[in-house]
Amino acid sequence: MSSIIEWCRKLATFSEEDGKTTRTFLSPPMHDVHRELSDWMRSFGMEVRVDAVGNLRGVLAGDRPRIMIGSHLDTVPDAGAFDGILGVVIGIALAEVASRRPHRPAIEVIGFSEEEGVRYGVPFIGSRAVAGTLDAPLIEMITPALRDFGLDPAGIPQCRFAPETSAYIEFHIEQGPVLESLGIPIACVDAIAGQTRGKVVFEGDANHAGTTPMAMRRDALTSAARWIVRVQKQAHTWLGLVATVGKLDVYPNATNVIPSRVIASLDVRHWNDEIRHEAVRQFTSRVNWTELLDQPAASLRVLDRTMHSLTSGAGHDAMILAPQIPASMIFLRSPGGQSHSPLESVLPGDVDAAMAFGERILGL
Amino acid sequence: MSSIIEWCRKLATFSEEDGKTTRTFLSPPMHDVHRELSDWMRSFGMEVRVDAVGNLRGVLAGDRPRIMIGSHLDTVPDAGAFDGILGVVIGIALAEVASRRPHRPAIEVIGFSEEEGVRYGVPFIGSRAVAGTLDAPLIEMITPALRDFGLDPAGIPQCRFAPETSAYIEFHIEQGPVLESLGIPIACVDAIAGQTRGKVVFEGDANHAGTTPMAMRRDALTSAARWIVRVQKQAHTWLGLVATVGKLDVYPNATNVIPSRVIASLDVRHWNDEIRHEAVRQFTSRVNWTELLDQPAASLRVLDRTMHSLTSGAGHDAMILAPQIPASMIFLRSPGGQSHSPLESVLPGDVDAAMAFGERILGL
Repeated sequence: MSSIIEWCRKLATFSEEDGKTTRTFLSPPMHDVHRELSDWMRSFGMEVRVDAVGNLRGVLAGDRPRIMIGSHLDTVPDAGAFDGILGVVIGIALAEVASRRPHRPAIEVIGFSEEEGVRYGVPFIGSRAVAGTLDAPLIEMITPALRDFGLDPAGIPQCRFAPETSAYIEFHIEQGPVLESLGIPIACVDAIAGQTRGKVVFEGDANHAGTTPMAMRRDALTSAARWIVRVQKQAHTWLGLVATVGKLDVYPNATNVIPSRVIASLDVRHWNDEIRHEAVRQFTSRVNWTELLDQPAASLRVLDRTMHSLTSGAGHDAMILAPQIPASMIFLRSPGGQSHSPLESVLPGDVDAAMAFGERILGL
Repeated sequence: MSSIIEWCRKLATFSEEDGKTTRTFLSPPMHDVHRELSDWMRSFGMEVRVDAVGNLRGVLAGDRPRIMIGSHLDTVPDAGAFDGILGVVIGIALAEVASRRPHRPAIEVIGFSEEEGVRYGVPFIGSRAVAGTLDAPLIEMITPALRDFGLDPAGIPQCRFAPETSAYIEFHIEQGPVLESLGIPIACVDAIAGQTRGKVVFEGDANHAGTTPMAMRRDALTSAARWIVRVQKQAHTWLGLVATVGKLDVYPNATNVIPSRVIASLDVRHWNDEIRHEAVRQFTSRVNWTELLDQPAASLRVLDRTMHSLTSGAGHDAMILAPQIPASMIFLRSPGGQSHSPLESVLPGDVDAAMAFGERILGL
C-alpha cells in the first residue's frame, strides 16, 4: 500500500538533523509526528492523547475485545524511514479500515516514545511505562525531558495498558536478511532472542614497537585478536546463535606503540537462554569479562501457524509487553537486510501483504 | 654521574604543559633549554649559536679533528627526562672534561631542534637540516614556526655540518628491554633498523548484530583479527624482525553492529632491508595494503668491537647523518625498558660508564 510508505517517508522528514532522519526520545520533531498522526486518527473518529511518558495513543471504539497495535516513533541517528514508525502507520491504517466496518474489535494504536535507547542509553522507555516496569531512578533521569516536552511525570502510572486489552500486535521490518533470502514477504515472530552484553579487557605492556623484541612483548591487541577468532569459531557450534564483537577500543592506539589495553564488546543472542548462557561461559572463560546485560528471551504468540515463523535477534517493544499480555509480531522483509541506515526500505507489495494479514487477524 | 641526571631532571621542567614534560619543535620552553645549556657551554669556553632551524650548537676548539656529539632537545607529549636530551648533556659534560685537557679533539655539541615528529608529523627536522636533506616543501611548512622563534629560514643552508667534522657520536637511552635483560649498562649500536609503515583496510557489511545469522555475515573485525594473528605468527619466522599492529580503528564501533570497516596500522622493522621487504610482502599478501613509509636501514660505526653491540629498532638522528658522515651511537640501559613516559629513567652508574667510554673514545 503505497500511501503507508508515503506516510513513513513524510514523517521521516521530521528530524533533529537537516537532511537526515534523527528523532530521539521527546525531541522537538516528535511534536510534529504526534500532530500529523493525531490529525489522521481523529479524521476517522479515534480518540487521541499523548500519555505521560510521551507515547501517542489513539483509541477506536468497537464491539469486540480491545487489541493494541503499535511500535515506536523514535529513531537511531541517521535512520531510515521505517524502523518502528511503519508499525504505527500500519496500525492506524488498520484502524481506519476497521472504522468503516459495523463490527470490529476496539483498537488502540500506540506510538511508543522511545525504543532505541539513544538519548539516555536505556531502551524501551515507552513500552516499559505501558508495562508498568519503569523504575524510579529512570523516571527521575527522564523527568527534565518530560517537562520540557510538556508532560507531567505524575501521570506515569496512568500509562499502563487498559485492563480490557486482549492482545498486543506489532508490525516491524525484519532488519535482517532472512526473509529476503527465503523470498518471503512477511512472517510471524515466535520469539525474541535473549541477549547478553558485556566487555572483555585485555591487558599488555605499552612498549616501543621498534625496540621490543617479539619474544619480550605482551601485546594486548594480539591477545584480543586471538580471542575474537576463537569466539567466531565457537559461535558456529550452536544453531541459531549469534555472537558479535562490534566495538574494540585500543590504547594507546598509536602506530609505533605496542597496545597496552584493549576493551572489546561482546553481544550474544539466542532464543534459548540456557544455550546463550553456556555459549557466554565458553566465550568468556580465561578472559577478564564483565557482564553488562542479561536479557531473557521472550516467547511471542504466533498468529498463524501456517505462515513461516522466525525468531527475532533484535529487541522490540513486544518483548517488554509479552510477560504481561499476549504479544505477537509480524516482520516485513527488509530489502538488502538494511536497517538503521537511510538505505532502509520496504516493498509496497509486502506492505499490502501485512495489511491483508492484519485485516484477516482483526476479522475486518 | 649524578649531576648529568640532575641537569636532565631540571631541563625536563621546561615544558608546554604544567606538571608534564612536553616540549615540541620550537615551542617557547625550548628558549629556556637553549639559555641554560648555552650558559653552561660558555662557562668553559665554548662558542655557542642557535642555527637557522633551531639546533643549539656549541664548539670547543681543539688540536685534533672535529667530532660532533649530540642528540635532540624536543620531546613527545608527557615525556620522560632523558630521551634525546641526555645525549646533549653528556656531550657538554664531555666537552667540559675536554676543555681541561691541553690536547683534545675539537668538539661540536649539537642539540637538534626536532626529532620526534610531534609538531608537524615529520621527524628529524633538525638533523635533516644538518645533513642538508631538508626539502623545500618542508622548509615552507615550518617557516612560520621558525620566524615565531626568531629564526631566519634563509640561513638553513648554513645549518650543514662543518666540512672538517670527522664523526658524529650520539649517546641515547635504549628505549627497550634488551640491555636490562642482559645486565649490560651500555652498548654500541651497529645499525638502525629499516622501517616499513602502512595501513591495511578490511571491508565488511554493517549489519545488525542480532538479526544477521553467522553464516550471512561479512565481519571486517573478524577478518582483521585473523590477519593480526597471522602477522604475529609469521613475524617469528625472521630472527630480529619486529612487526606491530599498534592502531586499529573500527567502524562504526558499536556493540550491536557488525563492523563494516577496520583500518589497521602495520609497522615492520629489521636491520636487513631485503628481509624486511620480504616480510612485508608476506604480511600484506591477500589484504588491502597501503604503504606509507619505507625507510632503509642505516649502518653505524661500532666504536669498540669488544663491547656488546645491538641494533636499534627505533629511529635516531644518527640514521640521518650516517649516509654522509661516520656515525656512531652508544645506548644506555633503560630501566624497565620504559621510555616516552614519565617513568623513563637511567641509572647513575650507567651514566658514569657512558662518560668513561666517551672520555676514552675522545682520548681525553
